[in-house]
Amino acid sequence: MKNKKPLILVTNDDGITAPGLRTLVSVMSEIGEVVVVAPDKPQSAMGHAITMNNMLYLNKVSDENSEIIEYNCSGTPVDCVKMAISEILRRKPDLCVSGINHGSNSSINVIYSGTMSAAVEAGIEGIPAIGFSLLDYDWNADFDQVRSFIKKITLQTLENGLPQGTILNVNFPKLKEEQIQGIKICRQAKAYWLEKFDKRQTPQGKDYYWLTGEFINEDKGEDTDEWALEHGYISIVPVQFDMTAYHAVQQLNTWNLNEKN
Amino acid sequence: MKNKKPLILVTNDDGITAPGLRTLVSVMSEIGEVVVVAPDKPQSAMGHAITMNNMLYLNKVSDENSEIIEYNCSGTPVDCVKMAISEILRRKPDLCVSGINHGSNSSINVIYSGTMSAAVEAGIEGIPAIGFSLLDYDWNADFDQVRSFIKKITLQTLENGLPQGTILNVNFPKLKEEQIQGIKICRQAKAYWLEKFDKRQTPQGKDYYWLTGEFINEDKGEDTDEWALEHGYISIVPVQFDMTAYHAVQQLNTWNLNEKN
Repeated sequence: MKNKKPLILVTNDDGITAPGLRTLVSVMSEIGEVVVVAPDKPQSAMGHAITMNNMLYLNKVSDENSEIIEYNCSGTPVDCVKMAISEILRRKPDLCVSGINHGSNSSINVIYSGTMSAAVEAGIEGIPAIGFSLLDYDWNADFDQVRSFIKKITLQTLENGLPQGTILNVNFPKLKEEQIQGIKICRQAKAYWLEKFDKRQTPQGKDYYWLTGEFINEDKGEDTDEWALEHGYISIVPVQFDMTAYHAVQQLNTWNLNEKN
Repeated sequence: MKNKKPLILVTNDDGITAPGLRTLVSVMSEIGEVVVVAPDKPQSAMGHAITMNNMLYLNKVSDENSEIIEYNCSGTPVDCVKMAISEILRRKPDLCVSGINHGSNSSINVIYSGTMSAAVEAGIEGIPAIGFSLLDYDWNADFDQVRSFIKKITLQTLENGLPQGTILNVNFPKLKEEQIQGIKICRQAKAYWLEKFDKRQTPQGKDYYWLTGEFINEDKGEDTDEWALEHGYISIVPVQFDMTAYHAVQQLNTWNLNEKN
């Protein structure tokens, strides 16, 4: 980093106008050279979707004189990262940050989240990456409470680097800065969403459904992100994209898969 | 399973009319009671996306007299699994199978794939699940070559169960049945897609882009899915949805995150 400002790519899934992203851009501009490539509309819960069957638009939205270069993109958060790397950035960025998400991406939410999937995509492409989320779904949530923590985590990431194949999933409790108990490195709690559908009818009498759900966490481990957040801590889960269940390989090798029946 | 046919949920991401799904339905109907809930249109590369900002339609498409109950759904593959569990199935299924995908879901493709994400969603909800994919993108690929292997893997899964929190990612090489060398339990190869965008112009002169890419695999391990498939084997990778990078926790705990600066 010496004598040279780090190049930081900023994205999210709530869209380029989201207050969470604006806060993240503001903090990052204190640290490095910032390029924003973010969706032109909300793309929550898009997971790791990419756009294969449609074209993509990219629009420069920052002024010629602006220090921060900004583009919106018609695709998913993962598309944004791919377009930034391929079409916009002159060199591989030193860091990709995604968020600040309006709402939690703790536990199993990591797998549904567009915010986290953008960070994971950067990680797959060899770029250190962090996703930030605040446990407040309000569009006007008070993101200022977490600015100092974001700066600290980002500077430490730039200084220390991240273990290969790892990105960070950072969640902030909805608390005032002075109420936050500290930062805990955690594992992803084993929780899930029990889906419920709200069934309605069109004016023409055809059934349709809205997805809703209830978050079920029966994992009471004190080393989980859910425990940390409930107790006033910021949770950091190191996330990997090698999804191999190594512990299962031995068991599967005992199956009779290669014997003639 | 004794004396009772297993209840099997079948889904995919290529859509309910895809020949790969029709083959899977045909094999599963030899094993159990089959319910199909699949997208009403292609949903490839949708990852773990769910539909939060739009409504969903569900349409019964099988005849009243049909033994196999079939619905199409306007949502993503993950939506299909959620709707099946919540709105259609009378009890938790004994198994969920997804595919047969038209094209590979080996290596990092697991994370982009709608087919695999549907299987992962079933796994999150505690249902044993398998995703099947054939390394042939042709709509008229010869799926008959892999029928016997699908049946064997499915029966073994029903008999042995799967380790908790694990689902199977099964990929078939594009070979004749008698050319297939056997089945290997593998790890996910550490590979990635190097994106390339095909830049074009609308008739009005506005730039737009199509995502394309090149698959880069520098992981030469002989225990990987890529190695197995290249050497004529069927690859099975046990996949988990706990994305915690446990090996990174200790290293992150050495950072100065909780010291006052």
